[in-house]
Amino acid sequence: MPFGAISTTQAALAAWKNVLGPQGVTTDAAVLASFSSATFKTQQGIPAVIYPQNVEQVQQCLKIATQHRVPVYPISTGKNWGYGSRVPVADGCVVMDLGAMRGILDFNEALGYVTVEPGVTQAALYKFLHERKSNLWMDATGSSPECSVLGNTLERGFGHTPYGDHFAQVSNLEVVLPNGELLETGFPRANKAVATPVYRGGLGPGLEGLFAQSNLGVVTKMTLWLMPAPDYFEAYFFSSDEESPGAIIEALRPLRMSGTLRSAVHIANDYRVLAGIQQYPWQETGGKTPLSREVMKRLRRQLGFGSWNGSGGLYGTHAQVAEARRLLKDALRGKVRRLHFLNGRLLNLAERFSHSFRMITRMDLRKTLTLVRPVYELMQGVPTPQPLASTYWRKRTPPSSNMNPDADLCGLQWLAPVAPAEGRHAENISSMAHSILLKNGFEPALSFTLLTERAMVCVIALTYDREIPGEDDRASACFQELTTALTAGGYMPYRLGIQSMDLAALNGPRAALIRALKSEFDPANILAPGRYGPA
Amino acid sequence: MPFGAISTTQAALAAWKNVLGPQGVTTDAAVLASFSSATFKTQQGIPAVIYPQNVEQVQQCLKIATQHRVPVYPISTGKNWGYGSRVPVADGCVVMDLGAMRGILDFNEALGYVTVEPGVTQAALYKFLHERKSNLWMDATGSSPECSVLGNTLERGFGHTPYGDHFAQVSNLEVVLPNGELLETGFPRANKAVATPVYRGGLGPGLEGLFAQSNLGVVTKMTLWLMPAPDYFEAYFFSSDEESPGAIIEALRPLRMSGTLRSAVHIANDYRVLAGIQQYPWQETGGKTPLSREVMKRLRRQLGFGSWNGSGGLYGTHAQVAEARRLLKDALRGKVRRLHFLNGRLLNLAERFSHSFRMITRMDLRKTLTLVRPVYELMQGVPTPQPLASTYWRKRTPPSSNMNPDADLCGLQWLAPVAPAEGRHAENISSMAHSILLKNGFEPALSFTLLTERAMVCVIALTYDREIPGEDDRASACFQELTTALTAGGYMPYRLGIQSMDLAALNGPRAALIRALKSEFDPANILAPGRYGPA
Repeated sequence: MPFGAISTTQAALAAWKNVLGPQGVTTDAAVLASFSSATFKTQQGIPAVIYPQNVEQVQQCLKIATQHRVPVYPISTGKNWGYGSRVPVADGCVVMDLGAMRGILDFNEALGYVTVEPGVTQAALYKFLHERKSNLWMDATGSSPECSVLGNTLERGFGHTPYGDHFAQVSNLEVVLPNGELLETGFPRANKAVATPVYRGGLGPGLEGLFAQSNLGVVTKMTLWLMPAPDYFEAYFFSSDEESPGAIIEALRPLRMSGTLRSAVHIANDYRVLAGIQQYPWQETGGKTPLSREVMKRLRRQLGFGSWNGSGGLYGTHAQVAEARRLLKDALRGKVRRLHFLNGRLLNLAERFSHSFRMITRMDLRKTLTLVRPVYELMQGVPTPQPLASTYWRKRTPPSSNMNPDADLCGLQWLAPVAPAEGRHAENISSMAHSILLKNGFEPALSFTLLTERAMVCVIALTYDREIPGEDDRASACFQELTTALTAGGYMPYRLGIQSMDLAALNGPRAALIRALKSEFDPANILAPGRYGPA
Repeated sequence: MPFGAISTTQAALAAWKNVLGPQGVTTDAAVLASFSSATFKTQQGIPAVIYPQNVEQVQQCLKIATQHRVPVYPISTGKNWGYGSRVPVADGCVVMDLGAMRGILDFNEALGYVTVEPGVTQAALYKFLHERKSNLWMDATGSSPECSVLGNTLERGFGHTPYGDHFAQVSNLEVVLPNGELLETGFPRANKAVATPVYRGGLGPGLEGLFAQSNLGVVTKMTLWLMPAPDYFEAYFFSSDEESPGAIIEALRPLRMSGTLRSAVHIANDYRVLAGIQQYPWQETGGKTPLSREVMKRLRRQLGFGSWNGSGGLYGTHAQVAEARRLLKDALRGKVRRLHFLNGRLLNLAERFSHSFRMITRMDLRKTLTLVRPVYELMQGVPTPQPLASTYWRKRTPPSSNMNPDADLCGLQWLAPVAPAEGRHAENISSMAHSILLKNGFEPALSFTLLTERAMVCVIALTYDREIPGEDDRASACFQELTTALTAGGYMPYRLGIQSMDLAALNGPRAALIRALKSEFDPANILAPGRYGPA
């Protein structure tokens, strides 16, 4: 393959500069080094970064890439931490940074939708709605507020409100194909069909799926559905000291399936909760890693959380929430240690009195409460930087106010298998993750999310300190071991990091079909080669 | 194009007979005539019908079709009445009848899913669940119980329970590509990924959409999600005598968007209701058509329904249903004339006492009640033959017990534009339909369905008697006039009959992309040419 040959790349760079201006193309070594850094070891080189400002420039950039056969790797805002950040899957790709395309268009309060470009961050959309005093809620994923809404949705990311399954809540993607043509996935005459923003299917074959987890086109716009704020909101929190979350999953699935629980339930183990509220307890452990189950047990008693810790939101009128509360209590009776319901007033009170509570009970809820507030707000679609702090779990110094896990050499690799929402699958996944991670010297920080009525995703965080010599390699070996064990057990990830893309490119007719689509749309294979498809 | 050349067709027929046996291929004139008949005028000839019994035979049949370049038009059970029945879009296609593939597989009560083949009818799936005393409900569309579940879902059909948006409730389609290869749209290793039946997305690009309203492959299996029966069910019915349903739509949209109404609301006009309960009032009108608004007004007073008549279901615990009832009452207060809530006990009572009611009030609710029972059951996913009777609206003789609209020369053409669920769109569509249909001598029988949180479909029935000379042509001209007016206004259909497929095959990059997919999968264009794509 002629990719990355100096002369063709130079010619492409000159052509891009013609289109984007000199400031729209950079080969600055410091910039390239920064774009080449993820939260784990990567070796891909990046010859340049280009910055289109609008869809016409994206079209021209892709035409140039095709003409010169120089591969291009588009990113939205590039906050894909734990899955590869801004680093391309293949070596020698020019990164196309779409962060400058920040348009928020076609906002419709009555029908609940908005159209966003790739550079629209969670924070920007939240601000947009807030400034307009909109009654609509966005759904936020528990990553950085600077994460792209469009980027996360295309990766099939999820959040915590009833609109948490992001890709299920979009319509009419605008896509630039690698040949530079512009496509809308909605109706044949998307510009004339009034249903385009509200009706996903369009007419004829449905195309939007093709561009999720895909290297078949660059999505430059999508319409996003937004939920009306409910009359009333209440969060629930529960914990259990059981070894396995199986009984809890079994108890909750019927409530998801009946529609009583309209949003994801999130069930985190003790390691995950601890990493959410503090860094590694270096003092208590005398610097020994990994954190043993025994020490973990002591810490969770002291801090007041369980081996499994669930949370979720109830949305509706007061009566609807009250009935959901009753049904949830019934379902969890005898299966959890504590079940608390929290509204804004109670949360304020709890925060105010946590100090006195500690003096009476000796339990220190203050740290746990630092986790409750952001989770409580996430359930209402408010983006928060808090979850990002857990990336610094194994670091020896605290995170700065302007967290940058790539630059700060935080080690993080996510692995997120999906399974039917059944207790036995939760047990299997949890037990594989616990044994393989601890054996390799890492903490099994994980959570189960009851994402839909009948499917759950387990998100496993392999967190470490990249500054420790050899740790990168040990972590990657452990990650690979866990991936192999899980997929052999039938637990395929719902999403892949750049280090695991081979899982999407298997043999068989499905792979052949995607290969055929790729060669049809992108015969020169210039668009994100290797990303969820053939390299 | 060499389609239909006698010699190649003969060679293909011989090859199919080799695979299917002599009884698996027919060129019997009576059979071909029956397959060539729809509920409107068609001229497409059918050289043969073939009957594969399993997926391997489907694969072989398509290989033979490709080899001999003989076009094949697959049908599931072919009850696509009003959209073209079993008649191919293009002339000279061999019909591939998949009705013998009746497998119901992988039933899972706890997770709520079942896998079905194309020949599984609504009645068969209902019987299957009933026999197993399953607590799961299917969703039924208001067509015949003999309609294929898979076929209706692929056409993006809909029903009346919370799982009414059929294509949104499926995963992992098994598809035979025109080259004979077998594909599963789920995970790359669908057979090994335990989430395959419950998680739609798979990993990498989403492919399932490609095979809805499509001629890119023959779907031979799909996994269908089923809802658990709620603790309690109640139906609501309301009516209004307003000219326009706009205010009702505006009042109900917030309840759909908030999730209080979890299923479609169905709002039928007076013409639609009347056609649901009786044939054309030949006596009252002295045989004059169309039924004028004045006579319609008199009839609806006499029979006790409104100019607009809404219905829907409330699902949940008693308390959830009670709260939804309260919110619905609040929303419709002052906007509807009557709002009734009905459970099974009340319905039985009403049926028993309707005669006495008539004696007291002079209103004859008995006919209206004949419509209520099937609607009430449809809302619980029970298939019913009742809606099919309205196909006989303009006939002079009553429908036989074994209704066959094709053979009985019932005229029916559906037109189903989709729009945002807003009052002004309902007004526009309704007013276009009323004026164009009445002007052309037909009744504007139509209904609005609040299908999703923010989109509604208007289903317009152009019903007539094909036995009247010239009526076929007048109806088709009227249909064309209405289609042109609606699409010019931005109201594109959600689904097409074989007479309107040109609406899916427009110019532009979307059409180019579908054409590219078609030539990739089906270079000889042997699969359902012209169906939602290039002819």
